[in-house]
Amino acid sequence: MSTPTLSLIPIPARVTPRPGAFALAASTPIEAPDALRAQAELLRDQLRPATGFPLRIVTNASGPRIALVLDEALARLGDEGYRLTASADAVAIAAARPAGLLHGTQTLRQLLPPAIFRRAVVPNVAWSVPGIEIEDAPRFSWRGSHLDVGRHFMPKTTVIKHIDLLALHKLNVFHWHLTEVGAWRKDSMVAPRTREASQRKFSGSPHAGFYTQDDVREVVRYAMDRGITVVPEIEMPGHALAAIAAYPELGNTKAQHEVQTYWGISEHVFGVGDNVLTFVENVLDEVLALFPSKFIHIGGDECPKREWKESPAAQARMKELGLRDEEELQSWFVTRIDTWLAKRGRRLIGWDEILEGGLAPGATVMSWRGENGGIAAAKAGHDVVMAPEKPTYFDHDQSEDQVVPIRGMNTLADVYAYEPVPKELNAAEAKHVLGAQGQLWTEYMPDPQRMEYMAWPRLSALSEVLWSPRETRDAANFAQRLETHLERLRILDVNFYRPRR
Amino acid sequence: MSTPTLSLIPIPARVTPRPGAFALAASTPIEAPDALRAQAELLRDQLRPATGFPLRIVTNASGPRIALVLDEALARLGDEGYRLTASADAVAIAAARPAGLLHGTQTLRQLLPPAIFRRAVVPNVAWSVPGIEIEDAPRFSWRGSHLDVGRHFMPKTTVIKHIDLLALHKLNVFHWHLTEVGAWRKDSMVAPRTREASQRKFSGSPHAGFYTQDDVREVVRYAMDRGITVVPEIEMPGHALAAIAAYPELGNTKAQHEVQTYWGISEHVFGVGDNVLTFVENVLDEVLALFPSKFIHIGGDECPKREWKESPAAQARMKELGLRDEEELQSWFVTRIDTWLAKRGRRLIGWDEILEGGLAPGATVMSWRGENGGIAAAKAGHDVVMAPEKPTYFDHDQSEDQVVPIRGMNTLADVYAYEPVPKELNAAEAKHVLGAQGQLWTEYMPDPQRMEYMAWPRLSALSEVLWSPRETRDAANFAQRLETHLERLRILDVNFYRPRR
Repeated sequence: MSTPTLSLIPIPARVTPRPGAFALAASTPIEAPDALRAQAELLRDQLRPATGFPLRIVTNASGPRIALVLDEALARLGDEGYRLTASADAVAIAAARPAGLLHGTQTLRQLLPPAIFRRAVVPNVAWSVPGIEIEDAPRFSWRGSHLDVGRHFMPKTTVIKHIDLLALHKLNVFHWHLTEVGAWRKDSMVAPRTREASQRKFSGSPHAGFYTQDDVREVVRYAMDRGITVVPEIEMPGHALAAIAAYPELGNTKAQHEVQTYWGISEHVFGVGDNVLTFVENVLDEVLALFPSKFIHIGGDECPKREWKESPAAQARMKELGLRDEEELQSWFVTRIDTWLAKRGRRLIGWDEILEGGLAPGATVMSWRGENGGIAAAKAGHDVVMAPEKPTYFDHDQSEDQVVPIRGMNTLADVYAYEPVPKELNAAEAKHVLGAQGQLWTEYMPDPQRMEYMAWPRLSALSEVLWSPRETRDAANFAQRLETHLERLRILDVNFYRPRR
Repeated sequence: MSTPTLSLIPIPARVTPRPGAFALAASTPIEAPDALRAQAELLRDQLRPATGFPLRIVTNASGPRIALVLDEALARLGDEGYRLTASADAVAIAAARPAGLLHGTQTLRQLLPPAIFRRAVVPNVAWSVPGIEIEDAPRFSWRGSHLDVGRHFMPKTTVIKHIDLLALHKLNVFHWHLTEVGAWRKDSMVAPRTREASQRKFSGSPHAGFYTQDDVREVVRYAMDRGITVVPEIEMPGHALAAIAAYPELGNTKAQHEVQTYWGISEHVFGVGDNVLTFVENVLDEVLALFPSKFIHIGGDECPKREWKESPAAQARMKELGLRDEEELQSWFVTRIDTWLAKRGRRLIGWDEILEGGLAPGATVMSWRGENGGIAAAKAGHDVVMAPEKPTYFDHDQSEDQVVPIRGMNTLADVYAYEPVPKELNAAEAKHVLGAQGQLWTEYMPDPQRMEYMAWPRLSALSEVLWSPRETRDAANFAQRLETHLERLRILDVNFYRPRR
């Protein structure tokens, strides 16, 4: 077990104190082979602003140094595991894969005084790393943070800051809930202008409400360089009103709809004609070109069936395919997309409504309406990502303050106590639980400050749930480590909620 | 004259096209003597994210390179002037002082494609610098941006982004309008929690509304490293209600006041007893420790005299000092502070109300109520900084949109046409005009997005007014260059106002 004074979050799998300490100095080089140049540069960029030390990157060094080492012997720690050893002579971060080195550098940052996170030189700090040996690897491979930028737009700068914070917490999936399909077809935008009338007076601004494709590429690459996969979500067949408003022929009726100006579920969903599938596949072509992620999130949630029940075309499609009900029609729609994605080497993931009417063969389920969807999918041999409303929906209140008009509360303690593997699963089934993620639905997060207030430190707690071995979970010890960690977040100008003691 | 395709803002004093072009490549080193290591690192940090090139810093290089050179022969260009030459062999930035090199690197960034401003690698871009020789130096030494964080608090991240943008525009003064004196005495805060009741529901957050002293140090150092001086403003003897509310003995009556919850001028001002001066000097001791700036802004504006007229203590003080009226009493107060600052090697600057009752001997005047204050001060041999409401108050509307409840409009064209040297001044008097600055009073800028919308591109226009020779001013040419410049700002995620054509 770690000594509490280390204050690492997430806590590493195995920590062994060692005598001595490493003193970072102006002369300290970073030793790394050419293959690790990018990782070494990232480490230098993280340590140089506050220390002011040049941290020259060299392939061979003598004397005290920070060393980055690729070591195939550490393959037993997996693709993301690493070993960090610190003594008076050196800090060595070793891993079988670059992803492990990135996580090791985040541990190194947290081993230094919190002032390391400042963006200009802080004089008179002893930049000392305690003597230590850490062997560390994540418990789950999907450690995610979902962010909805459709309800309230979040500027690129905010997204990049969020990605930096995910990296600090060894979270590795950024589930970017972009928006309905329709928005992709206009002006190369990948998220729509805000629908908030109150924000429209800012409309002279060219980017208050959308990212260009180049912006998306920038964010995706920025995240990738930090070990984070960006999983895009493009919703279908429900939550499609924006697309249908722009292209009425994508709907089930001839009616012309207005884009919805209130939160919630629309009755108006995609039709099931070939024209719709062609449209969706064209959109997905663009998505695949922008996002290298193996997983593509197609939404699939909250798709009312009334229009399909009343549509002659939908009913004819059901008859043609021999489908018994509209749930099976939805399943057919999702299976078409699942197959299309699989042919292109990708995997479909969707909210647990995609279970209705039969799960598409390659689909992974994101379980949000409690754990049942995840349990059913895992028992059926499908991979699942746990995202249950309780306690991973961070739009819910975190205290009795009742600032959010959403029923229920997910406290920091709830999140820290959360166990992603439901007890209903046996060991073989449990392997299908890839991990979990925290959800930031932004209906009631009008700006970045509010988003951060809802995200942190609940995401800090979740990062430990997802990274650290279950047996290291200790709420009192976490609370103690959190004090120092909040100082890091404060220096990083994160508008976090301060839990009451 | 520059060719319009260069799109440099501010436009350099002298541009000579040269044959050829420099192609930045993965092998390009930055050559710089050890004394310029910090400047070379900053340049590398600016060019590496988008190119992905390592840009090794070396003291000797052969072959194509970027070279930073200190050259005393360029002292004729002043402390901030530089020469940039680009050919197929090298880009050389030379200056007599490091400040000049910093400005030269900003020019280099603007000579590269706008994608250079992205924060992750952009593939398939030709990172080419056109063949060119530039000799450049600023017209004015005070090229400022004022930001009020008292009316609406702006997070540290926003302030740092703003400083990056000032550096890009070769602006060199950040006038940080912190708040009233009183806030300095509580909990080591240097700006108060917001007084906005509507924001108080965020009060679980530890820093939604203040900077710690370490935050201030970080911002000051960050700015300094980029050639920008942070001038703090601490208001006295008016705009002091927050202090008086906390410490009634600093006022003129025994009344207990509440902190003001509405914008505007309070009747309640500092008393003139020794206890007040001691208090103010103690606060200024802390200010000087945090801010190395030669100039310290003490406000001095909008100080109603009613309380002094009615206060026996103030009237006794006037009699004791042989002062004729309350304006002279204010002048005595400011002179005391002026003397106190001068003894410590600093200089007092204040809004033009400090002219009333006689200007303190060492005082510099910031002329905001039109130009008359500046003209009077310059004619009296005092230095002045021009900050007239028209057109440098950027809280005023910039178009007919009328989004701000403030009378009058300051358009981009108004700002670009502004001439900081009033025609009433002869050549000798004109030398007292140090420069000018744009004001961001935040009564009606509730968040960073709105602040940026009001600041840009008006600050871009002002940067050219203040840097470039008067004879290069050409509105049509500026409008043309602005198109490319707005693309830079868009990539930098600045929420600028797009002027109509």
